[in-house]
Amino acid sequence: MSNEKTAITPSTHTAPPAKFSHGVRKGNILQVAGQVGFLPAEEGKAPTPVGPTLREQTLQTLANVKAVLEEGGSSWEDAVMVRVYLTDTGHFAEFNEIYNEYFADLKAVPAARTTVYVGLPAGLLVEIDALAVLG
Amino acid sequence: MSNEKTAITPSTHTAPPAKFSHGVRKGNILQVAGQVGFLPAEEGKAPTPVGPTLREQTLQTLANVKAVLEEGGSSWEDAVMVRVYLTDTGHFAEFNEIYNEYFADLKAVPAARTTVYVGLPAGLLVEIDALAVLG
Amino acid sequence: MSNEKTAITPSTHTAPPAKFSHGVRKGNILQVAGQVGFLPAEEGKAPTPVGPTLREQTLQTLANVKAVLEEGGSSWEDAVMVRVYLTDTGHFAEFNEIYNEYFADLKAVPAARTTVYVGLPAGLLVEIDALAVLG
Repeated sequence: MSNEKTAITPSTHTAPPAKFSHGVRKGNILQVAGQVGFLPAEEGKAPTPVGPTLREQTLQTLANVKAVLEEGGSSWEDAVMVRVYLTDTGHFAEFNEIYNEYFADLKAVPAARTTVYVGLPAGLLVEIDALAVLG
Repeated sequence: MSNEKTAITPSTHTAPPAKFSHGVRKGNILQVAGQVGFLPAEEGKAPTPVGPTLREQTLQTLANVKAVLEEGGSSWEDAVMVRVYLTDTGHFAEFNEIYNEYFADLKAVPAARTTVYVGLPAGLLVEIDALAVLG
Repeated sequence: MSNEKTAITPSTHTAPPAKFSHGVRKGNILQVAGQVGFLPAEEGKAPTPVGPTLREQTLQTLANVKAVLEEGGSSWEDAVMVRVYLTDTGHFAEFNEIYNEYFADLKAVPAARTTVYVGLPAGLLVEIDALAVLG
């Protein structure tokens, strides 16, 4: 496996707001940058959250992480860690419900996960990043 | 070293509250999910924090991380990163005292560490996860 | 590549305030511990932030991460992930400006990044850690 460092940029993603990559692969490590619930990019349109609810944002965020994994030649099956940033401890139970539905058909063992409660830019309720080990 | 992804579930641990693993090993990477100060699992009993104090919770949390490392064929000696989530900046000095006592006999060089202050579910003062590189 | 675990301690750095390493290398993984905007260590002087502004602290923090990467035989070119902890969502735009200036000459593809808003000890506005894959 080559150790060349490559950027991963799904076509669904807007350009990052700073000099970072949505995903990076080097050797057998694939790191997905923190994703939020932005809709797929539209030319000339600023990044737009899918909607105000935890359900909408969680599903879109997971879709955005998945897009990076897949663009990098990987999938949820390779993910070893998922970091979840919520903004409200009151969202934990509902988040878990959505998370479980989303991963209901996952064939591999599920990734490890850490969930903590932080501040996020106004309107965003969830941010998720992931680490995958390929091969 | 096989690159098969395996879940790590110490017998002391309650089932995760959602579709994630307490630890995952893939290749030479072992990721421990965020652990808190829950007592060892008891059949039919909800996860219960060891007690209200930072000392009790920190020691139990470190024991829970260690249990995952060891169930995965590893130990603190392999840990390269420890992520510490506290809820109160006023806890930093006491946390460090407890941390230093806990690792007083560590033979390997200590892991890197990041400590930040976040929100956690009511009653929990500390959450810790860890990344280990085996072999 | 040897899998021996080694601590990375740049000469510019004060001793960590607890039993952790500023950086750890094991195999081809290099983990940089959470860095803040402390000035280079001076014998007999407590760690001192470079100054009160986001710009000063961000540049010093990035310099401190870089020092660990380089002491470990690496560089920003190998970094796959940068974790940014800010204390105020109002700092995001200015932080990105500084970040982009800092990485203007980076030859490799930029690392992935997650930015969240947490609490930090009084006076500190930013903390950053990084993961690099070598070779």
